[in-house]
Amino acid sequence: MKIDLRSDTVTLPTAGMRAAMEAAELGDDVYGEDATVNKLEAKVADMFGRDAALFCPTGTMTNQLAIRVHAQPGDEVICDKLAHIYLYEGGGIALNAFASVRPLDGNLGRITAEMVEQNINNPHDVHQPITKLVSLENTVNKGGGSIYDFEEIKRIKAVCKNRGLILHLDGARLFNALVETEQTPKDYGKEFDSISICLSKGLGCPVGSVLIGSHELVHKARRFRKVMGGGWRQAGALAAAGIYALDNHVDRLKDDHRKAKDIAEMLTRNSHVKGCYPVATNIIMAELRDAMDAASFVSKMKENDIHCVAFDKYLVRFVTHLDITDQHLQLLADKLKF
Amino acid sequence: MKIDLRSDTVTLPTAGMRAAMEAAELGDDVYGEDATVNKLEAKVADMFGRDAALFCPTGTMTNQLAIRVHAQPGDEVICDKLAHIYLYEGGGIALNAFASVRPLDGNLGRITAEMVEQNINNPHDVHQPITKLVSLENTVNKGGGSIYDFEEIKRIKAVCKNRGLILHLDGARLFNALVETEQTPKDYGKEFDSISICLSKGLGCPVGSVLIGSHELVHKARRFRKVMGGGWRQAGALAAAGIYALDNHVDRLKDDHRKAKDIAEMLTRNSHVKGCYPVATNIIMAELRDAMDAASFVSKMKENDIHCVAFDKYLVRFVTHLDITDQHLQLLADKLKF
Amino acid sequence: MKIDLRSDTVTLPTAGMRAAMEAAELGDDVYGEDATVNKLEAKVADMFGRDAALFCPTGTMTNQLAIRVHAQPGDEVICDKLAHIYLYEGGGIALNAFASVRPLDGNLGRITAEMVEQNINNPHDVHQPITKLVSLENTVNKGGGSIYDFEEIKRIKAVCKNRGLILHLDGARLFNALVETEQTPKDYGKEFDSISICLSKGLGCPVGSVLIGSHELVHKARRFRKVMGGGWRQAGALAAAGIYALDNHVDRLKDDHRKAKDIAEMLTRNSHVKGCYPVATNIIMAELRDAMDAASFVSKMKENDIHCVAFDKYLVRFVTHLDITDQHLQLLADKLKF
Amino acid sequence: MKIDLRSDTVTLPTAGMRAAMEAAELGDDVYGEDATVNKLEAKVADMFGRDAALFCPTGTMTNQLAIRVHAQPGDEVICDKLAHIYLYEGGGIALNAFASVRPLDGNLGRITAEMVEQNINNPHDVHQPITKLVSLENTVNKGGGSIYDFEEIKRIKAVCKNRGLILHLDGARLFNALVETEQTPKDYGKEFDSISICLSKGLGCPVGSVLIGSHELVHKARRFRKVMGGGWRQAGALAAAGIYALDNHVDRLKDDHRKAKDIAEMLTRNSHVKGCYPVATNIIMAELRDAMDAASFVSKMKENDIHCVAFDKYLVRFVTHLDITDQHLQLLADKLKF
Repeated sequence: MKIDLRSDTVTLPTAGMRAAMEAAELGDDVYGEDATVNKLEAKVADMFGRDAALFCPTGTMTNQLAIRVHAQPGDEVICDKLAHIYLYEGGGIALNAFASVRPLDGNLGRITAEMVEQNINNPHDVHQPITKLVSLENTVNKGGGSIYDFEEIKRIKAVCKNRGLILHLDGARLFNALVETEQTPKDYGKEFDSISICLSKGLGCPVGSVLIGSHELVHKARRFRKVMGGGWRQAGALAAAGIYALDNHVDRLKDDHRKAKDIAEMLTRNSHVKGCYPVATNIIMAELRDAMDAASFVSKMKENDIHCVAFDKYLVRFVTHLDITDQHLQLLADKLKF
Repeated sequence: MKIDLRSDTVTLPTAGMRAAMEAAELGDDVYGEDATVNKLEAKVADMFGRDAALFCPTGTMTNQLAIRVHAQPGDEVICDKLAHIYLYEGGGIALNAFASVRPLDGNLGRITAEMVEQNINNPHDVHQPITKLVSLENTVNKGGGSIYDFEEIKRIKAVCKNRGLILHLDGARLFNALVETEQTPKDYGKEFDSISICLSKGLGCPVGSVLIGSHELVHKARRFRKVMGGGWRQAGALAAAGIYALDNHVDRLKDDHRKAKDIAEMLTRNSHVKGCYPVATNIIMAELRDAMDAASFVSKMKENDIHCVAFDKYLVRFVTHLDITDQHLQLLADKLKF
Repeated sequence: MKIDLRSDTVTLPTAGMRAAMEAAELGDDVYGEDATVNKLEAKVADMFGRDAALFCPTGTMTNQLAIRVHAQPGDEVICDKLAHIYLYEGGGIALNAFASVRPLDGNLGRITAEMVEQNINNPHDVHQPITKLVSLENTVNKGGGSIYDFEEIKRIKAVCKNRGLILHLDGARLFNALVETEQTPKDYGKEFDSISICLSKGLGCPVGSVLIGSHELVHKARRFRKVMGGGWRQAGALAAAGIYALDNHVDRLKDDHRKAKDIAEMLTRNSHVKGCYPVATNIIMAELRDAMDAASFVSKMKENDIHCVAFDKYLVRFVTHLDITDQHLQLLADKLKF
Repeated sequence: MKIDLRSDTVTLPTAGMRAAMEAAELGDDVYGEDATVNKLEAKVADMFGRDAALFCPTGTMTNQLAIRVHAQPGDEVICDKLAHIYLYEGGGIALNAFASVRPLDGNLGRITAEMVEQNINNPHDVHQPITKLVSLENTVNKGGGSIYDFEEIKRIKAVCKNRGLILHLDGARLFNALVETEQTPKDYGKEFDSISICLSKGLGCPVGSVLIGSHELVHKARRFRKVMGGGWRQAGALAAAGIYALDNHVDRLKDDHRKAKDIAEMLTRNSHVKGCYPVATNIIMAELRDAMDAASFVSKMKENDIHCVAFDKYLVRFVTHLDITDQHLQLLADKLKF
């Protein structure tokens, strides 16, 4: 039995989700006539207490749409050096938004208000790009699923407000943070100018992401979505999966987090593993001892039908998700004793 | 009963297609593991006698991917001034590929080998962008579904070969041309460096388009697809619809064409209509008399629950498709007598 | 003796201009401290009745700066299909401003208010780029030095105002128009949101162009000038040439125009020439008879040390300028009798 | 008497240089006919043992031309986080070349072969931009004029060769490094795919920079120079200044370096200054004690007509150059005793 811990993107739709998809009312979304897409967009906007939302094929698209709406050519984006928008979106900050990036050296992918304050470019110096946008990620993928302190987010927001900067959230795994903290989506809706959430990660949908913000943001994003090739037609079945996931798959994320802690414990007992961190949500970063590098470790695991990914020379990432059962965990416990 | 002749994009999946979608085997396509996506891509590549294919959310994405793979920043693209890539893809030639465009004044959207020959920029003059790509559309949407003469395509290809230009086909409605002519997909595969086909237009799928070409083209396009936000995950259900459509919905396009001719005849009898043209496939362009402009005509039709779109001041477009039945036609005949 | 009629860019500084250049007070223009650059910018802004001006190395830079300040990525620019910004600036509309272009079929490079009105894209249709900028050229280089009717300019301005469009003037040869009509620079300053003038064409400077407009335009353009590599340092000597030219070389353009008429007359007598047009300013377009194409004609002229350029298959351009003397004309009269 | 130590860009042409400028033979450089520009380009290409060179208005233009010729849209550039191309060229890596940047944390702006090796992106992962170009700066402006160890450059070159990367040098102040080390321009010509040198910094010209490399590089750069607005006309006078500077102002850079050491000594004795570093060439970085920040220090110096720039909160930059005399130094010694 395959144990696929590479990513929470690998999940397959559940029976309930499939039924919802089959029952979805469809229409042409380019004309704004797909009732299920409209329902999802209204539901998500409402959930975050914002005007509008836009359903897109991927989180890369929703992030990149936000960046290109917020930043003008020649502007600069501040983010952590581990940010997904910087590392894993194909260089889109430059390629889609023609903007520079100032990657900061935060803690497990989380920057502080002070760091933002110190890295804002002087708008009167023609040599420098103009700082326009700050982008946070929560939880941070490359930070091992680390969670932002909401108080820090509020401090960052205060700096942005004071210095005329826009604040975006890459919330691909925001619900993983929400189930572990006391904030609600509306709390996040208040602090950020735009939020991207993913339906196809922890929430278990096959395809989809939603961009949330003002009417004006979504209006502009809809234009750029078209030129990026995201103006899909009868997307209602995928939207139905999203609605189902938001209704049924949020609370259960705690289960993924519990399993992550169990796996971390198992891994820590493995002789090749120095330790695991931060195991705050559904991601485990296993740091290896020098004797075996990540590529060899991943390869050895694969021989045992355990699938994970190398994140750095001695760092391996495991991710729990909807399709990892207690049976998988038991099996894993046995297999990890090499 | 609503008669929706605005576009062939408005179709809903048939029962057979829905069954195929439900039965689809899924996986994470970013990892190349969605079996149904892989099957669709292999099937289409094979159908056109080419190396590889890439399944994407929209025809705008497949066209834009081809353009940005073929053209370097500062290059120029030759196309007809009615081309979809020029008029209706959000300015993507400039915005995605940083390329200039030389829109030519063809016949119903079709350019000739002579026109191409005369519009190639001198590569040694630093003032001018370098002509790199010729893009044809077949059938031509804004040309009223006009079909290219395949001999002219071969002549254009010869010019391209001789002058070192790349040739792309926007084949969003290529199958509408194929059922009316004697060529096969493989004939087209031989002449073009890349081909984009749409599954969500005449073929009746909810979502999807396929880019076809060499391994190298598809490899590069896959990268750009990611940065454009097209790297979807479990897209297999949509791919299954595509496979079903290619197996079941191609030959029936002739039926759409027959209905288009019937509708053109009805329209010609309407007192506001001067004439219809070219009615070569599933699109009817109705030219109005000066007494009523397109906006008013479309609005009047809408009152009768007949839906069409204004294409120019005195030009209205009607499109037949999978969801237009003989019953619709009968009803239309009655209603058009205003 | 060489008769160089290829372009008015080939002129060499006169003795008076050289003296002005040598005497120029210099400073670092990136710090805003070159007194002569500042003097030129103030002089030109004042001449056109506008807030500010920016001295740049070329007219391509000033045009492109205006376009990229005015147009956002995904916007569309309307111009004549003969416009320098479209044909001869390396595809910069796409490459620098990420904007589409709608080239219109005007008369000798001049478009009308009606043409503008009919080519504005619907801002609510996500398929289309948004029309943002109209750019005129006066005189029109590729139109053979044709002059715009100022009343038409005012009508175009009215359309722009009414439809929320910005109006730019490529005035590389504006002074050639001014000396033939009754308008003043201030009249142009009133109608256009930005104006680019060239010092290195008819005015006879070695290098330089000036962008004119509001403080905000120039502030933004100064930023883009830096990233385009136009932030030069002690440019005062070149600016001094510009001041000298504006004081001494404007009125004398009439002399160039008179010489152009004389040359047109000579050319018309040549057996290979069908006719010359429009000869409105300092450019002559000689249309050839079928017996000899432009390339052969240019080559034959070159054998006689007469230099001109092929503009189309049977079209040759001659340009008069500061360095063409009456002696050159006499010699030309003799030589043109082949 | 003003003591301007803000930058070596503020110098004015010497009498000898002015004489050379006045005597320069001119022509239209867009046609390749400015004899003095051609002479400068040939001289520089020869000096570095390379095929070709291109004379441009600024070092930002020559750097940006190199980057956009070398990097395709979506590629990534590796440089130090203090690099001029990253910090002070208006975000041009993104805006001109559509490329991402990986800023590394080197020593005084100098990176190592190991750092390059560890930061190359996997070309098979569609999530990441493709590492294409490594750019070094020598001396490093923001590193306080620090000099690269040539052995390290050779090690970096070896990594580039091995991994298929291109190597560019921002040599705005390369001659400052050359007079302090045993290498020749030809040694640098061998290691780098392209080199940009500045004539308007230590060499004392009013305007100008030269890009050096292969015929193909310069051919492509010439095209991009046009679209960036750098296709100037009779630039020969500026080129003459460049030729004069290369013949007369290289060896004297040692004098600037000696003066920098003298000034550093004076500064160190100032009670507000903690220390100066690295003082390897013509730049002094003065680190202040907490009692006075850089802005206040710069402002206080300005009251004494001593001009320098704040580089960081407690860091001030002084630069020596052609126009700083021994008399300035004596005066400075007196004034710095506050």
